[in-house]
Amino acid sequence: MIKAAVLGATGYAGIELVRLLTNHPEVNIEILGSQSFAGKPISDVYQNFRHILEKECSEVDLDEAAKCDVAFTALPHGASKEVIPALLEKGLKVIDLSGDYRYDDAAVYEEWYGEKHSSPELLKESVYGLPELHREKIRGARLIGNPGCYTTCSILGAAPLLANKIAETKNIIVDAKSGVTGAGRGLKLQNSFCECTENSKAYKVTNHRHTSEIEQELSNIAGEKIMISFTPHLIPQKRGILSTIYVNLNRESSVEELTQMYKDFYKDEFFVRVKEVGDLPETKHVAGSNFVDIGVCYDKRLQRAVVVSSLDNIVKGAAGQAVQNMNILFGLDEKTALSNAGFYL
Amino acid sequence: MIKAAVLGATGYAGIELVRLLTNHPEVNIEILGSQSFAGKPISDVYQNFRHILEKECSEVDLDEAAKCDVAFTALPHGASKEVIPALLEKGLKVIDLSGDYRYDDAAVYEEWYGEKHSSPELLKESVYGLPELHREKIRGARLIGNPGCYTTCSILGAAPLLANKIAETKNIIVDAKSGVTGAGRGLKLQNSFCECTENSKAYKVTNHRHTSEIEQELSNIAGEKIMISFTPHLIPQKRGILSTIYVNLNRESSVEELTQMYKDFYKDEFFVRVKEVGDLPETKHVAGSNFVDIGVCYDKRLQRAVVVSSLDNIVKGAAGQAVQNMNILFGLDEKTALSNAGFYL
Amino acid sequence: MIKAAVLGATGYAGIELVRLLTNHPEVNIEILGSQSFAGKPISDVYQNFRHILEKECSEVDLDEAAKCDVAFTALPHGASKEVIPALLEKGLKVIDLSGDYRYDDAAVYEEWYGEKHSSPELLKESVYGLPELHREKIRGARLIGNPGCYTTCSILGAAPLLANKIAETKNIIVDAKSGVTGAGRGLKLQNSFCECTENSKAYKVTNHRHTSEIEQELSNIAGEKIMISFTPHLIPQKRGILSTIYVNLNRESSVEELTQMYKDFYKDEFFVRVKEVGDLPETKHVAGSNFVDIGVCYDKRLQRAVVVSSLDNIVKGAAGQAVQNMNILFGLDEKTALSNAGFYL
Amino acid sequence: MIKAAVLGATGYAGIELVRLLTNHPEVNIEILGSQSFAGKPISDVYQNFRHILEKECSEVDLDEAAKCDVAFTALPHGASKEVIPALLEKGLKVIDLSGDYRYDDAAVYEEWYGEKHSSPELLKESVYGLPELHREKIRGARLIGNPGCYTTCSILGAAPLLANKIAETKNIIVDAKSGVTGAGRGLKLQNSFCECTENSKAYKVTNHRHTSEIEQELSNIAGEKIMISFTPHLIPQKRGILSTIYVNLNRESSVEELTQMYKDFYKDEFFVRVKEVGDLPETKHVAGSNFVDIGVCYDKRLQRAVVVSSLDNIVKGAAGQAVQNMNILFGLDEKTALSNAGFYL
Repeated sequence: MIKAAVLGATGYAGIELVRLLTNHPEVNIEILGSQSFAGKPISDVYQNFRHILEKECSEVDLDEAAKCDVAFTALPHGASKEVIPALLEKGLKVIDLSGDYRYDDAAVYEEWYGEKHSSPELLKESVYGLPELHREKIRGARLIGNPGCYTTCSILGAAPLLANKIAETKNIIVDAKSGVTGAGRGLKLQNSFCECTENSKAYKVTNHRHTSEIEQELSNIAGEKIMISFTPHLIPQKRGILSTIYVNLNRESSVEELTQMYKDFYKDEFFVRVKEVGDLPETKHVAGSNFVDIGVCYDKRLQRAVVVSSLDNIVKGAAGQAVQNMNILFGLDEKTALSNAGFYL
Repeated sequence: MIKAAVLGATGYAGIELVRLLTNHPEVNIEILGSQSFAGKPISDVYQNFRHILEKECSEVDLDEAAKCDVAFTALPHGASKEVIPALLEKGLKVIDLSGDYRYDDAAVYEEWYGEKHSSPELLKESVYGLPELHREKIRGARLIGNPGCYTTCSILGAAPLLANKIAETKNIIVDAKSGVTGAGRGLKLQNSFCECTENSKAYKVTNHRHTSEIEQELSNIAGEKIMISFTPHLIPQKRGILSTIYVNLNRESSVEELTQMYKDFYKDEFFVRVKEVGDLPETKHVAGSNFVDIGVCYDKRLQRAVVVSSLDNIVKGAAGQAVQNMNILFGLDEKTALSNAGFYL
Repeated sequence: MIKAAVLGATGYAGIELVRLLTNHPEVNIEILGSQSFAGKPISDVYQNFRHILEKECSEVDLDEAAKCDVAFTALPHGASKEVIPALLEKGLKVIDLSGDYRYDDAAVYEEWYGEKHSSPELLKESVYGLPELHREKIRGARLIGNPGCYTTCSILGAAPLLANKIAETKNIIVDAKSGVTGAGRGLKLQNSFCECTENSKAYKVTNHRHTSEIEQELSNIAGEKIMISFTPHLIPQKRGILSTIYVNLNRESSVEELTQMYKDFYKDEFFVRVKEVGDLPETKHVAGSNFVDIGVCYDKRLQRAVVVSSLDNIVKGAAGQAVQNMNILFGLDEKTALSNAGFYL
Repeated sequence: MIKAAVLGATGYAGIELVRLLTNHPEVNIEILGSQSFAGKPISDVYQNFRHILEKECSEVDLDEAAKCDVAFTALPHGASKEVIPALLEKGLKVIDLSGDYRYDDAAVYEEWYGEKHSSPELLKESVYGLPELHREKIRGARLIGNPGCYTTCSILGAAPLLANKIAETKNIIVDAKSGVTGAGRGLKLQNSFCECTENSKAYKVTNHRHTSEIEQELSNIAGEKIMISFTPHLIPQKRGILSTIYVNLNRESSVEELTQMYKDFYKDEFFVRVKEVGDLPETKHVAGSNFVDIGVCYDKRLQRAVVVSSLDNIVKGAAGQAVQNMNILFGLDEKTALSNAGFYL
């Protein structure tokens, strides 16, 4: 059995990890790290876990952690950087859900996060944990920078066009809509029920940090530096991201050709479902599951592809992808504990 | 492996059955019966099943069904009665999600459903499929009348007070609130998003059919004929029932005594979680799981217990309970495919 | 023109008052009192007011307030008691939306609020601001204790049965469901979108403060001391309260008789709409309006009335009722600024 | 008093018209046309209108209609074309909420609607009823083609950039999100509560009819033929549209310059509110009101404006705009019955 520590277990990404790991046949959760709820059973904080997991939360204790094989760090931004080097030293594999270890280049991190990176040397060995693009590197990694929700959705949505050199690399626009779990569990007026329900809005227009993550990965695929417009929106639902991606093409195409191109690109990927021509993703189709659904449209008048991709932001966009990465790291079937159909209802 | 037929697979209870059964290690779904979508893959109708279950729906064919071990009938009211005798003849065990086989007495059925029962002889052998009350009878049954959502929630919420003879049997009131999946997938204006969201209402006040089911079971427990007020309400959420149950007591008590009484009554029941004093159920705690949560309050001024019980209407109130019944029928661990913590988010 | 001060203008009840008063042809809002947003235009805090009301919020200044004719105090509990005596001294009429001046008897207040009342002498002159029951007293009052949302809904729902002496005064049960605006704008995890949506729960079972307000008024109508069960629930919508009220009757009746009894009782009340036999209230029918809708059912088997009443908790249950009271106080048509149909959508 | 007929009064746009007109001091609603509910009081169909408007619905009778001054036609697509010529002949002014009379050129209509236009000669005199752009023409019109919801939001969002010749006319992308009232009241499974809530999706990608309307108006402003990407999305709320508009600029700019440009362009427009730098529209700010809110961002890296515009689809995007047009047609203050702050809550 793999011994796992979940640090930050009582945030929304953390508790989703706990939900997935309690169904994982090869994992024992040894540590439920939580600053705010140390000493309390997790089943008091999230009462859906009663009769399932009654284990107590605890503050992070590195000596305790040392007995684990893997740590998932779902900590507030910044906190990750402090604890992760110590965990690595203790010999754990670390899957970090923050943005701290997702970058090839500390300078990009520092530009978008507005602060110095505290362990830039680790960036060299950390692997961007998007299995569909970096599976081989993940296999041998010690430290995984588990991608964000917006980024996973957007990168996988655009990748086949760039890899197939049919995309014009200018004028790529990603318009993304996210459910409110993406904002985490912290107390903010803007996240209260009465402010969120019956409300939609854009935020951090032109300067959301995930822009730089998407650009890094798309640039790597294209083999040239790509800059995009990325606009996040908040919509009144709990789970789900829907990205609508606009890409001018450098030659005429058709919806049939593009759909086939996507199917070919993802033909070995269980967690990517390319929609049939005429079908489009809905967040309902992916809620509660680790799938990314992608539908492709073609605007003949404008020689432009419009791609819609969707995932559950706290599964494939956070906890599920982390489990997928763990499965790869430990040589398990990548689908273990992740092969369910989601909720729909 | 148990060979299962799900008849009415594309309704909301049906598709939840399919969701649970695809995660069941001992079951193969052989037949996805659907009048409306015969010939279509289930993964076209519910696209969350793509890559998970791509099987085609079909019209009910009794010879095909004959090769199955068990049939779940999640058919529109009335349709069940026509197909079930034939299924039994073919040697299948049948778990029926309609109201047709839940009654001890055809006369009660006929009074509340306003029509003759077509196979009253089967009522004699059919078992009311509430495992917490009738586990032993279920074990040997051929035909299970799987209880409704309101009823399971209400009966389990009131049972310990009656069994312990502390309840006055007059003036029992059950005020229940249900999510909209309870209304099924049929097209009705009143179930449209713009009519349901930001809206709550009572309906079928004083004459909802589930009243009679609750009365039957509570009367059996009490050993006397009980009549109750049962008021169903529709509230703007998908899943979840919350029943608030008012019971006058025949002597003084305390919240501590009552809570202990409930804990004792359900001490061997995995799927019933009695809340600690001061905690109360929330539909969020049970959504997506097979649990019933029950919290007990005591009004000293009025010598009255106020019990709040909650479950997910399409899991413990329909599909999950049906799987639980199947597990019992086939000698499996009752928790198989049902021991997860639900969604919370 | 009536000069009005709204103290606590940026809470949910406060801003609803502002919304209603900006449409009132006889009122000028002179003061928008807000501790948290003093110095900021109200249209920055609630951007829906841009181009409509750009006035700045300010801290309460009693000398400024002195130039007003009426003050609405929508302050956090406790704060009201400190400022109101001063406002009265300055000659203003005061309509208080807190619980502080709703009681005939300071002892009841102190029992349910768990603290001494700071100005019990004012309780003698304050009038319970439910126009449908106390219109004449309101007309001449200086200080109105504007009733709470649950109470208005429940009292008006039960009053005709008690006034007509057809009710048994024991075993009255009020099961109420409220939207989340009722919890106010204060930051609480339990009010965040992801915790509220798809969730329903009971809270403060057997001990909610509004119990005592309902009991006071119902006792006054019945001419005897009445104790009730009152159970509040939180349901996932913004606006709206639905109360389901169970009352045993002391003789046989019929839905037709009871409906007529309600129609007679409220025949002069514009804001009370008794539903036709067979119709029931829905929160959607009252959202955004000052109406109370009441539907009556009769359970012949149990000789019990089941009454469903509904209102918009921040209109008839707070701000709208306050405006209605102001209209009465100043001799205006009671419907002024309140005669609209609500939103429905 | 203006005598008004509302044809299609029981659809969502129709009933919103009725809501607005019942608050209009200069209008009497003479006719509530409704095929489905003829003979029924409107207050039975929409019970929020009880005590406000109890008038009966009726089938359209042209002789009855002849006594009116104005007809609002909120009829299903196609039905408008049949009745409107007759109404005009009877001497009424007609404000049509369908797409039938919004086009300069019947050929464009026929291309996007896939059918012949039945009265192309009327297209010559009909005026596109967007007051902010065509106020003078509206003043003298007999027939107004009242713009759609998506179009009003998108055109007003993009117009200043084109009018100021700072926009590159290629690569304009409009990504729009709409609440579910936009889909009307017709029965469709996809509009049911359980299918809509917690769900978002794109639809009619590359081929939604409103594309052509937006292109017509933007082309007129730019003085050249413009083609755009327009992508509609459905999000789980009742009211509200949010359009995110991407426009490359032909020179460097700044958020301050662009914001000022918008403020200048709309300086005389009460119903257009340009957000201050740093603020962005939210659908909550416009819900229930006739306002369009617009916020402007500038992406320096890409020399691209990102404009967010928002309105209430059934007010400024349908019924409110129709009333605004009526006010202009009849020489009233354009704001009459429309100068409220909306709901927010």
